[in-house]
Amino acid sequence: MLDVCLMGSGGSIPKPERHLSSALLRYCGASIVIDCGEGTQIALKKAGFTFSRIGIILITHFHADHISGLPGMLLSMGNEGRVGPVIIAGPPGLARVVESLCIIARGLPFEVVTYEFSQDGGSLPKELFSDNKREPKKVEDEKEPFYSPPSHIDPITLFDVKAFPLFHTTPCLGYRISIPRAGKFDPNKAKAAGIPVELWGKLQRGEAAGGFLPDDVLGPPRKGLDVSFVTDSRPSESISSAVFRSDLLICESMFASDKTARALKSRHMTAAEAAYIARDAEVGRLWLTHYSPSVNDTSVCLAEACEIFQNTTAGRDGTYETLRFPDQN
Amino acid sequence: MLDVCLMGSGGSIPKPERHLSSALLRYCGASIVIDCGEGTQIALKKAGFTFSRIGIILITHFHADHISGLPGMLLSMGNEGRVGPVIIAGPPGLARVVESLCIIARGLPFEVVTYEFSQDGGSLPKELFSDNKREPKKVEDEKEPFYSPPSHIDPITLFDVKAFPLFHTTPCLGYRISIPRAGKFDPNKAKAAGIPVELWGKLQRGEAAGGFLPDDVLGPPRKGLDVSFVTDSRPSESISSAVFRSDLLICESMFASDKTARALKSRHMTAAEAAYIARDAEVGRLWLTHYSPSVNDTSVCLAEACEIFQNTTAGRDGTYETLRFPDQN
Repeated sequence: MLDVCLMGSGGSIPKPERHLSSALLRYCGASIVIDCGEGTQIALKKAGFTFSRIGIILITHFHADHISGLPGMLLSMGNEGRVGPVIIAGPPGLARVVESLCIIARGLPFEVVTYEFSQDGGSLPKELFSDNKREPKKVEDEKEPFYSPPSHIDPITLFDVKAFPLFHTTPCLGYRISIPRAGKFDPNKAKAAGIPVELWGKLQRGEAAGGFLPDDVLGPPRKGLDVSFVTDSRPSESISSAVFRSDLLICESMFASDKTARALKSRHMTAAEAAYIARDAEVGRLWLTHYSPSVNDTSVCLAEACEIFQNTTAGRDGTYETLRFPDQN
Repeated sequence: MLDVCLMGSGGSIPKPERHLSSALLRYCGASIVIDCGEGTQIALKKAGFTFSRIGIILITHFHADHISGLPGMLLSMGNEGRVGPVIIAGPPGLARVVESLCIIARGLPFEVVTYEFSQDGGSLPKELFSDNKREPKKVEDEKEPFYSPPSHIDPITLFDVKAFPLFHTTPCLGYRISIPRAGKFDPNKAKAAGIPVELWGKLQRGEAAGGFLPDDVLGPPRKGLDVSFVTDSRPSESISSAVFRSDLLICESMFASDKTARALKSRHMTAAEAAYIARDAEVGRLWLTHYSPSVNDTSVCLAEACEIFQNTTAGRDGTYETLRFPDQN
């Protein structure tokens, strides 16, 4: 089960009911945050998530409404006991931006590892996690750190992260986060291969054991879960390809169609344009987000989008859903 | 009349009902913001203030809970039409911190002037304003800037700002903001001096005219208004001196007395310590602020403080008061 929460649905300037861009995905107790606009800390608290479980922070681009909450959130993660390394990934130039912002977030009790995708995107390398599965940073603090990564596997490695290019006024990336789903354990297959029962558990968890491989006890891979996040951008066919058949697409809806000219000028999308992407990409559902402060009534955006793609939600701060693997439904 | 609003009453980590450190003073349509923790933008909107009227931002120190909202607020000021220069003042090192944070706030449509006090504090030089009363920065924007400084006097110059040293884990300044009150206009004095009636208005507004000086038509200066802001610090006699007879003291109350040891270690104050300062300094009233996230019930702090200094309010986000000159009451 994958929990997804839209933490900030506002673009540009926050409104009392709309924090700035941020979403959180949680799986097996590990969390990824995408974007970290001002207010993300508050939104995270309101939604009941735990700072110390955040292992990856993905940044779409360096406009303040997508990253200004970063130093505060890192400090709060430290205050709440995070000791394992944190990966911050984003477009080229990320390391310098993070370093500059962290002038007010010194002495973090965990290691920050930055990773810059190319402008064309790519996959977040799994080696980043193994490289950083060293001992957590030791801190002398009165508080006992309550986070200790599981010994056999860090759940954050279960996320596959792919970045793809967006089309904004500055280099910007969209993200597709996938949770692959291994085949079902097949005891008959295991017995036929003569595998001792005591090795079954390890093989079932995806590890090699006693000269056998997981494939020796598992059926064919099952459909996993995919969530895509697209903001800020003009629409493009390449985006539809990148988010193809995602279970959930979270996509910007800066304006309704009456402001198409503004969307064009500022290189944002209207609700209808987001819906066309959702339809063309055959996604499961669409959450609209990143509304301009001028959008007071998001139901106008919703109505426009539903004309094109019915399974749309006008996302708001705190919109939450638990996605289940198809074979769990 | 001076409006004072506590915009963020939280310390360290924000809570859903408590944004991080910030207060706003408004006089004659010009505003000063003191501290700019995460959430200041939202708090400002909630309280109904105007971004574009902020002429001075004072920073107490560079811990994130006091400054992390700065880049976002500067951008919002620009978005809402600020064109006149903005003075950001704080402890030594300010310019570098502001420059680093502004990596995500490029292209502001107004000039940012940083001023570093010494560690011992001092007065904010009035020349800063006259130096910056040049033409507002010209911007090519579809929006018409709605702020134009009055021609004869910029109201922000009516604020006198004094910084004084606090005693925290890092260089930190307290602030005393004063609105001086000129003497009352005395028509008999003007007549006796033979001043033509057409000059009275200008002299009354504090400007020289026709070889006469304002003192030629004004009675003795009247008591003005003083607001002091103290966070983060251990208590000290020098603080009581610096805030002496302020009409309002806004002072940190990180803990109640059951956590005096933590206050000592982290170099913060308890509510009782804030109240002793208020009592010794003979201030008009005291607002407690900057509560630790561990303080769920601020009435405990209030009760402790009231034992020592009765005219205390447990400040909360949005606590608001309009102070009037004594001769207006």
